[in-house]
Amino acid sequence: MIIVGERLNGQFGDVEQAIKQKDESIIKDLVDAQVEAGSDYLDVNVGTAVPSREKADAMVWMVETIQKFTDVPLAIDSPIDEVLKVGVEACEHPPLINSAQADPEELNDYIQLAMKHDASLIALTMDEDGVPNDVAKRVELAGNIVVAAMEAGMPFDRLFIDVVALPVRATQAQPGIVLEAISQLQGIADPSPHFIIGLSNVSQGAVKRSLINRTYLVMCMAMGLDAAILDPMDEELMDALITTELLLNKQIYSDSFLNAYRSSKRRG
Amino acid sequence: MIIVGERLNGQFGDVEQAIKQKDESIIKDLVDAQVEAGSDYLDVNVGTAVPSREKADAMVWMVETIQKFTDVPLAIDSPIDEVLKVGVEACEHPPLINSAQADPEELNDYIQLAMKHDASLIALTMDEDGVPNDVAKRVELAGNIVVAAMEAGMPFDRLFIDVVALPVRATQAQPGIVLEAISQLQGIADPSPHFIIGLSNVSQGAVKRSLINRTYLVMCMAMGLDAAILDPMDEELMDALITTELLLNKQIYSDSFLNAYRSSKRRG
Repeated sequence: MIIVGERLNGQFGDVEQAIKQKDESIIKDLVDAQVEAGSDYLDVNVGTAVPSREKADAMVWMVETIQKFTDVPLAIDSPIDEVLKVGVEACEHPPLINSAQADPEELNDYIQLAMKHDASLIALTMDEDGVPNDVAKRVELAGNIVVAAMEAGMPFDRLFIDVVALPVRATQAQPGIVLEAISQLQGIADPSPHFIIGLSNVSQGAVKRSLINRTYLVMCMAMGLDAAILDPMDEELMDALITTELLLNKQIYSDSFLNAYRSSKRRG
Repeated sequence: MIIVGERLNGQFGDVEQAIKQKDESIIKDLVDAQVEAGSDYLDVNVGTAVPSREKADAMVWMVETIQKFTDVPLAIDSPIDEVLKVGVEACEHPPLINSAQADPEELNDYIQLAMKHDASLIALTMDEDGVPNDVAKRVELAGNIVVAAMEAGMPFDRLFIDVVALPVRATQAQPGIVLEAISQLQGIADPSPHFIIGLSNVSQGAVKRSLINRTYLVMCMAMGLDAAILDPMDEELMDALITTELLLNKQIYSDSFLNAYRSSKRRG
């Protein structure tokens, strides 16, 4: 499982404060904790901590600050082109670009950006019409993404298709639609692209968020999800993730299987 | 989700003691707790509490005792023909017969027994050769079971196909094989039979049994499992079950969705 740590995001109060006050110690603590918990990438998103015109600078500050403390690669996360580009350019290691929509022009721009930086790319199964209400349209958009990547010569192991999880509280059929889409997309290409979701979306506005998150992660992994943007510091979530890998025969059983996985994922 | 409470089984020390000492209070406590926790059936198994020649009597005592305290139907569980038959005959309400193997003769005998008592039947995807090592053989045996039920005129809503979960510790590929079998068996007949497993088998001999059980239950439910023999008094397990139903859109979201489900399942 490829784990993208979600906590370096200006939507969280501590990170907002860090960005506003240029407080490196808050950033360092979140870097250390997420790396220790097994993150393969650290997501970096300035959120709404600063006005739009200051977001590019804030992104560069975040990227440069984080890289003082770790060499774990970053997922540069912004809906704003310019913010995303300066973030990618500030990376010392090839990042994960988060994210492109499936509209042809935007998709091709971002694939080119990824190719230029040897980066990986998250491409969303949504377009100018928004997030599809059904399985078929998600699968169709994923097909478009795969074709665009193929035509650009982008290796599929650098392509992350995000099937776009939506809140169960608001749209209760959507979690099941996403599960079915993940299932149908298995085998869409060989080698397969990765399949990813922003996990905590599913519990937006709901109670028992951690329970909902970890239950949904297990369901999605059973269907073939192999990457997620999530809070790796949520210990019960990580226990569920590790146990799912065990049951999918992706990790050898030992009585210390939880610790064994954590040790294997930990890096400096 | 159809919940078969597993705790009235002589393999557990308290139940073994109850059987040996004809102690109704132990039985009553386990009946009450499992019914309160939402059991649709209560599994009844004398286990190894008494020698073989006393098992039929012990089964009848258990069934009669349990029925003093509840009208929740029973799952009569024994590998011994005679024990199973006297158990079924002692039932005041149509029980679930647990279980028949897929060998034609045994299967037909048990289907006839079920028909005679308006009972439901658990039929295992295993035969005289044991539990299949692959998906294809499980699916083939499930096909045989469906055909046998159809030929006997048994309604599919009274047929529970058990895809036979095996311990992850001993045979690590098996949990994934069972998941794939559940997935492939969706749509095998219309209306569909139920799909069931004996959940705690998966964690036999392992550490973190409750974590493994609830993780595997969620995975199986994502694939289409709609019944399980499990410990309904394991609160975290039931939380995971309820949350999975929510995410599969089988229960309406409310901020009290855990309590709402429990209230709806509770019966006297």
